Amino acid sequence: MKILPSIGETQSCCHEWKRQGKLVGFVPTMGALHQGHLSLVRQARLENDFVVVSVFVNPTQFAPNEDFSSYPRNFQQDQDLLQTEKVDLIFAPTVEEVYPQQHNHTIVEVSGPITAGLCGLARPTFFRGVATVVAKLFNIIQPTRAYFGQKDAQQLAMIKQMVFDLNFDLEVVGLPIVREKDGVAMSSRNAYLSLEQRKSARVLFQSLEMAKARILDGEKSVSYIVSEMKQMIESAEQTQIDYVEIVSSQTFEAIATIQPEQRILIVIAVYVGGTRLIDNLQLQIS
Amino acid sequence: MKILPSIGETQSCCHEWKRQGKLVGFVPTMGALHQGHLSLVRQARLENDFVVVSVFVNPTQFAPNEDFSSYPRNFQQDQDLLQTEKVDLIFAPTVEEVYPQQHNHTIVEVSGPITAGLCGLARPTFFRGVATVVAKLFNIIQPTRAYFGQKDAQQLAMIKQMVFDLNFDLEVVGLPIVREKDGVAMSSRNAYLSLEQRKSARVLFQSLEMAKARILDGEKSVSYIVSEMKQMIESAEQTQIDYVEIVSSQTFEAIATIQPEQRILIVIAVYVGGTRLIDNLQLQIS
Repeated sequence: MKILPSIGETQSCCHEWKRQGKLVGFVPTMGALHQGHLSLVRQARLENDFVVVSVFVNPTQFAPNEDFSSYPRNFQQDQDLLQTEKVDLIFAPTVEEVYPQQHNHTIVEVSGPITAGLCGLARPTFFRGVATVVAKLFNIIQPTRAYFGQKDAQQLAMIKQMVFDLNFDLEVVGLPIVREKDGVAMSSRNAYLSLEQRKSARVLFQSLEMAKARILDGEKSVSYIVSEMKQMIESAEQTQIDYVEIVSSQTFEAIATIQPEQRILIVIAVYVGGTRLIDNLQLQIS
Repeated sequence: MKILPSIGETQSCCHEWKRQGKLVGFVPTMGALHQGHLSLVRQARLENDFVVVSVFVNPTQFAPNEDFSSYPRNFQQDQDLLQTEKVDLIFAPTVEEVYPQQHNHTIVEVSGPITAGLCGLARPTFFRGVATVVAKLFNIIQPTRAYFGQKDAQQLAMIKQMVFDLNFDLEVVGLPIVREKDGVAMSSRNAYLSLEQRKSARVLFQSLEMAKARILDGEKSVSYIVSEMKQMIESAEQTQIDYVEIVSSQTFEAIATIQPEQRILIVIAVYVGGTRLIDNLQLQIS
């Protein structure tokens, strides 16, 4: 397994693989790897000749009040995990390598309903930061396929839109959320939670499951379902709701009434203690 | 010579060339080809195994009040010229192919001094439209080298910045302005000029030459040189100045005093009749 901090060497290496007609699978990460990331890496390993994982905590997707400096970093453990998964190349650049002082004038921005609401409201700089760094990484790695988790549903939809709009020559693969035994979605930020908060965090998935059960029972009113979810979430300790919404899973536009044939996404963001957690559940209405 | 209107087929074709380790030269154009474009095509022909020319009048770089609908289009003649230059592939998509109705949410934008002034002031949507379409074309063609004319100096600098910032794996080649015998810079928009206006248009290059002579004579004051240029331009029939400036040719920041070792760019935009013409002259101060 190669570990490269340099854009130029990484680009040359991946370029050479592509030139040989090899399939290159790419998993962009911010490190602090968990089973969610590893599910992406394993799928990439199955489907491609070479697997590249980037480990880069991207400053431009954090607002000044957010957790860039405290975001968990554990490169030695990440490296061991990726070695076990038979990854071919870790691209692990410094911030200066990715954003040289005198040069970061260019941004990529995806507008429209996909990025306007939900996390786009709470974290206005987030999606621009992600779109720009992912465009850079795509140009460096030039992957055949790139793998993203469904946990960041809005991010995944945005990346698909960007790839379509800018004609990137690659396939975006979205994979299901990986959960702990008690239902909590895997997230690097779970490491911030105290034992008490970790217990409270279960309410996110519980509220999603409750909403699913209501919908399968025939409940049509989104406002009713959402208010039940909010009540449940607020009953847990140290929770503060950012958003609870039901949207179209294609367009991310709000849905008022559950209707046949819809593909919906129940999406939530909740602060547990000071930690912002997100989760979601996709449902195909029959 | 292939002529392809489809993004998918063009991408496959160029992708296959790259896979074979061939060098692909790319010249993006809006058609209405003249000797300026052909100088780019010839250089691309010399330096690469395959040459691709795109012919696409990009609507997103025109403001509503600009000349998108009347922009000269002469595809049969373009095709004949490119055949003579032994071009391998013309990519000639429709607007709908490049911007499908439901999908154009993503923009690429280069901020900072390169795009803020000069044409960025007169045409606020222009650079965003160019950056976005060129990013798309780069992803479709995946060229080894892309060729742009120095006549659009600000556009060339912006593309170089975008390629650097977004880590596109290609080289941007800028080539000198090609001029008519009387000094007028080749431009597709020269076709809009009446005989009378065509005569007036000579004042652009004449004012650049005059400024160069003043500077070589030792004149240091930019405001003096610019006011002399403006006087000269205004003395010609049917002219209206948009801007006359002297800037750093690297940063496009305004220069107040000519100093040793500077690389300067004298840039002008002038309406002649209703037609907006631009021109520029690069100078290395010794």
